[in-house]
Amino acid sequence: MAADCIFCKIVAGEIPCFKVFEDEDTLAFMDINPVHPGHVLVIPREHYPNVFEVSDEAIAATARTARRVARAVRATLQPDGMNLLQCNGEAAAQSVLHFHMHVLPRAMNDRAALNWPLKPGNMDEIQSLSKRIARAVE
Amino acid sequence: MAADCIFCKIVAGEIPCFKVFEDEDTLAFMDINPVHPGHVLVIPREHYPNVFEVSDEAIAATARTARRVARAVRATLQPDGMNLLQCNGEAAAQSVLHFHMHVLPRAMNDRAALNWPLKPGNMDEIQSLSKRIARAVE
Repeated sequence: MAADCIFCKIVAGEIPCFKVFEDEDTLAFMDINPVHPGHVLVIPREHYPNVFEVSDEAIAATARTARRVARAVRATLQPDGMNLLQCNGEAAAQSVLHFHMHVLPRAMNDRAALNWPLKPGNMDEIQSLSKRIARAVE
Repeated sequence: MAADCIFCKIVAGEIPCFKVFEDEDTLAFMDINPVHPGHVLVIPREHYPNVFEVSDEAIAATARTARRVARAVRATLQPDGMNLLQCNGEAAAQSVLHFHMHVLPRAMNDRAALNWPLKPGNMDEIQSLSKRIARAVE
């Protein structure tokens, strides 16, 4: 656990999150600054700052969980498309220095950028969606 | 192998590529329509159309190779940032229906979009970079 890492604090239960899935190695929870509804973050429980430092095992576990979550988001919301996105460094707008993968639903012609301004979503809506997505995880 | 899949043909050696890494399960080669120099694609050898269909094993192997390639691209080019990006469906601008992960170097303030127009790069430059990146893979 890294000091002052918000995602480590979420893993430790010190900060709440809208959880959609967890297993031994990973945790998936709603992004509270969603680009589109159903935007989920997947992290390894262990702290690694980025793709350059992450272990083979942790990136594999994160990718497997992202696959499960992507299917659940699709089943719940039927978006027009979906990205898995992982960001490293300032130029890639990495905002939390704990390796994470975005499961990012897309809308047709949404003109989404690779870097986006962080704008809080509606927390009631996010919580409600988290429950629907969690139920859809297989 | 899927009929008419350009990435399956690359795996089979029927279409050439600028290879940077391969192992039993995956292949990494230069994107010939690079967003920035050092843009690499990582694919599983087996054909899966997208993240919804890909196997647990194939996405884990692809992510592990993306991690190795990301380190090699960083060692070679020292970009300002880097993304791993995986696209599904028309709204996410998936252009080849064989699961793949982009290793996408970023430049500060490049205003990169999640969907980009496909514009061929300079093939000599791409080939030369592929050799430098391949040598940097650990």
